[in-house]
Amino acid sequence: MPQQVIAEISVTPLGTASAGLSQYVAACVDILKQAPEVSYQLTAMGTIIQGPLERVLELAGKMHQAPFAQGAQRVVTTIKIDDRRDKPLTIEGKVQAVVKQMQ
Amino acid sequence: MPQQVIAEISVTPLGTASAGLSQYVAACVDILKQAPEVSYQLTAMGTIIQGPLERVLELAGKMHQAPFAQGAQRVVTTIKIDDRRDKPLTIEGKVQAVVKQMQ
Amino acid sequence: MPQQVIAEISVTPLGTASAGLSQYVAACVDILKQAPEVSYQLTAMGTIIQGPLERVLELAGKMHQAPFAQGAQRVVTTIKIDDRRDKPLTIEGKVQAVVKQMQ
Amino acid sequence: MPQQVIAEISVTPLGTASAGLSQYVAACVDILKQAPEVSYQLTAMGTIIQGPLERVLELAGKMHQAPFAQGAQRVVTTIKIDDRRDKPLTIEGKVQAVVKQMQ
Repeated sequence: MPQQVIAEISVTPLGTASAGLSQYVAACVDILKQAPEVSYQLTAMGTIIQGPLERVLELAGKMHQAPFAQGAQRVVTTIKIDDRRDKPLTIEGKVQAVVKQMQ
Repeated sequence: MPQQVIAEISVTPLGTASAGLSQYVAACVDILKQAPEVSYQLTAMGTIIQGPLERVLELAGKMHQAPFAQGAQRVVTTIKIDDRRDKPLTIEGKVQAVVKQMQ
Repeated sequence: MPQQVIAEISVTPLGTASAGLSQYVAACVDILKQAPEVSYQLTAMGTIIQGPLERVLELAGKMHQAPFAQGAQRVVTTIKIDDRRDKPLTIEGKVQAVVKQMQ
Repeated sequence: MPQQVIAEISVTPLGTASAGLSQYVAACVDILKQAPEVSYQLTAMGTIIQGPLERVLELAGKMHQAPFAQGAQRVVTTIKIDDRRDKPLTIEGKVQAVVKQMQ
């Protein structure tokens, strides 16, 4: 398995008529559903992805473009990448490491 | 119930000897365990909190201070606040709104 | 002088009629103009502030509230705090340290 | 000129021996100095870049990799993209729009 990173991606269209954005987020998550080589988890504040760095950046670019196809005129996207090379990172493993420290 | 915001807080000590940070994150989550008026969810990329704006900012300040008590010399903290006033936001509700759009 | 942090604050109203947000950002910067104990610098991606941690969090809270007074129904605010205790950080000094490394 | 985005990139190595990171940031900025098709501005909290979306993502990936070549074992990178399609965005123009509102 190639080196995996954990990333959080948040795509926000601005200047939409409504303050509700779930239809735009759904289109972004749909892009991830069609990318079998990455794992993802939807949270209240973004989407967490696990996969190779280049693939994650490519998918982030596609997710960023999605709201324009739905009529948005401006989109702000945040991508945060956590990349650890001395031991494998997984979405599950990062949470478990903290939980273990708390016991 | 007062107006609730959803926030994501990520506290990162820099210049620590090891690349592993779970002991620092655990101390931050411990602060939230002692704050019964907020809900929280630990994710692989941060901690998601639901509560009144002022209380969330106060807890973020306390979480930011925690690594210094464990010996850190520099801490970078990110706080992202989502505050919607036209209808109630909850950690669960935000995720469900997207899931519903995908069906 | 008390311990100073450097922070970047970005306040984004969602669901506004227009994609242009400069009127909202101007109201946020106005709050900082009236806070003589902090320094600030406006950039294309946010406002950088230097001041004591508690004062920075208090001002961030006020800036976050400002767009609601202008009619916004939802606001997403990002606060990133850089706090170094082994030597003083300043807005100018951080940039100069990098420039010096590049020579 | 192709569609330009404004992005802010912040690359942070974790678990380095020292709390000072300017040598790592300098290596990242060096990558931008060699990319004539983008404009950039170094700030106290990151590097602001103006250029086509695909090129910005590619450069962000290269900047993220740089600290590993300097010995880092873990790197956290944040990329924030502001992409407006109804009118051109520039680093200078965004700041000027706010300044104009304040007069």
